[in-house]
Amino acid sequence: MIEDKNPQRTSIAQLGEFGLIEHLTKNFDVTQESTLKSIGDDAAVLDFKDKKVVISTDLLIEGVHFDLAYMPLKHLGYKSVVVNLSDICAMNARPTQITVSVAVSNRFPLEALEELFEGITHAAKEYKVDVIGGDTTSSQKGLIISITAIGEANEEEIVYRNGAKQTDLLVVTGDIGAAYMGLQVLEREKQVFQVNPNSQPDLDMYSYLIERQLKPEARKDVRTLLHALEIKPTSMIDISDGLSSEIIHLCKQSKVGCNLYEDKLPLDPQFISTCEEFNIDSTTVAINGGEDYELLFTIDINDFDKIKGNPNFSIIGHMADESEGINLVTRANTQIPLKARGWDALSE
Amino acid sequence: MIEDKNPQRTSIAQLGEFGLIEHLTKNFDVTQESTLKSIGDDAAVLDFKDKKVVISTDLLIEGVHFDLAYMPLKHLGYKSVVVNLSDICAMNARPTQITVSVAVSNRFPLEALEELFEGITHAAKEYKVDVIGGDTTSSQKGLIISITAIGEANEEEIVYRNGAKQTDLLVVTGDIGAAYMGLQVLEREKQVFQVNPNSQPDLDMYSYLIERQLKPEARKDVRTLLHALEIKPTSMIDISDGLSSEIIHLCKQSKVGCNLYEDKLPLDPQFISTCEEFNIDSTTVAINGGEDYELLFTIDINDFDKIKGNPNFSIIGHMADESEGINLVTRANTQIPLKARGWDALSE
Repeated sequence: MIEDKNPQRTSIAQLGEFGLIEHLTKNFDVTQESTLKSIGDDAAVLDFKDKKVVISTDLLIEGVHFDLAYMPLKHLGYKSVVVNLSDICAMNARPTQITVSVAVSNRFPLEALEELFEGITHAAKEYKVDVIGGDTTSSQKGLIISITAIGEANEEEIVYRNGAKQTDLLVVTGDIGAAYMGLQVLEREKQVFQVNPNSQPDLDMYSYLIERQLKPEARKDVRTLLHALEIKPTSMIDISDGLSSEIIHLCKQSKVGCNLYEDKLPLDPQFISTCEEFNIDSTTVAINGGEDYELLFTIDINDFDKIKGNPNFSIIGHMADESEGINLVTRANTQIPLKARGWDALSE
Repeated sequence: MIEDKNPQRTSIAQLGEFGLIEHLTKNFDVTQESTLKSIGDDAAVLDFKDKKVVISTDLLIEGVHFDLAYMPLKHLGYKSVVVNLSDICAMNARPTQITVSVAVSNRFPLEALEELFEGITHAAKEYKVDVIGGDTTSSQKGLIISITAIGEANEEEIVYRNGAKQTDLLVVTGDIGAAYMGLQVLEREKQVFQVNPNSQPDLDMYSYLIERQLKPEARKDVRTLLHALEIKPTSMIDISDGLSSEIIHLCKQSKVGCNLYEDKLPLDPQFISTCEEFNIDSTTVAINGGEDYELLFTIDINDFDKIKGNPNFSIIGHMADESEGINLVTRANTQIPLKARGWDALSE
């Protein structure tokens, strides 16, 4: 939708592989003390001293994970980094480095790759992570991005998925469901645009939802917030596939049950009004819509006083004995078993 | 070419993403002391204590990096791991972990992915590295493999590309060029097969070349061999793009020149005879053909006595002042400037 009327198109082949890598990576600074050697050798060299190293990786495929019709390349670059850093944050670790591999078909001019790397560079600066390596190659079809994120933490800080106890409280950061509704708005605009390419969409009333979809943030701040409150979560995960699916992960790995309260779900007013406009049940979207990249965690019940009323956190339920199952407690006070339907549930 | 007459075909969709990951990763053991937490959380957790961490990543795309017409999936899985471990070995580090991300189009049945992962598992066992994470997703077209390799080393052991001095000797492990000729043999057989699918190729006389192409090995042993000889290379790189290209990398990063001697190139007899059969100049293939995954390194001239006559190593040249340039000294004793043509040179 964002188009340059006189785009410059430089063929990638003109630069060659090594020229391309050099050109795209020249803006990457090294700021982390743990980065001894960055791009330019067979491998990067890192030194974490007495810290533990946390590593996660993701593969993003055009047409599967993103649609370039409404995803500007700069945003895509930013988001690709963020979704990986979110996994590091979900371990209660501090993101420090990433590697970035990109494959593109020859329909992409150099300028498109530059835009993508602008977004990657921006995210790396924003989150203070070093880009220490990667690979640039051609693809048979579309754009492929593979990112590996690296972080560090002291051993006692690291939070796994399997530490929830049956008396723990269930807490979520921020609000949920908005990224999914942002996608719905963008999908609708794409269809309008295909029918009438001259239409000028007014998306102001959906700005928050669209931002959540196109420019999500990893909750790097939560580690600091919790540290200040002297709370260490007993289990934690990030919300990529949907709240429901993530709760089930925590419960299964911790061998506990859970009651999630419908009336406690943190929803943004724009999210609620747009659900009404689209005639979709907001609770269904809130528990199944993915890509919010908020953190979901459990805390000891004795930490309740430290967190209650804190605007960064919502207590949305409590864990229970495994035999109780994993349930949504509705406003009408009935228990419905949660299913890990994720996005599929919404496209039915 | 290797075909099962009654192949079983299970749709990947039947298992779902989490089921698929669980199914494919169930054979991965953890053997490295540094792996604290492997697959199953938002990220893996590693502990390298006082060692430095070495990280490299590669993206392999069907139709660009491999052709499934002659590359059995099990070999492809094995080779994908090996090419990444080779980068770790090129830092004089010890490979310890890998992450493996795979995207496949729905034309791949589960059985095909199982074969791929069998090769990956085999390589992980052979090289004693833990598979600590990854991602499994669908692609719009073909098979995509992204692997990140992790290794460890003491700081003083690590060898970079930029340490060569102008008086150093240039050394290569094993022999070179065979992997490229293996590819030529396989390409020829593919064309014969396309014309006559009933032809039974006799590839015995090319067995070494084909093995070099389909089942290369990373020179993990070189670290130990050099350690025993009390030699620390001054610079090192692995041969993935071709000897010529790698020599130029060492020279440029070390700011030195080089003389490479044609009559010192280590060539296998099968390689020489097949070059004759294909009517290709063996020196051109040896210096430009890639994918040998041997190690190329420089040593101090005072280490000459420690390495001379050692069957694992060939001294193929010496470094020089930067102003001398980077040259091939032919059998006729003429100097020809080396070019980083890599594979392109051979397809001209």
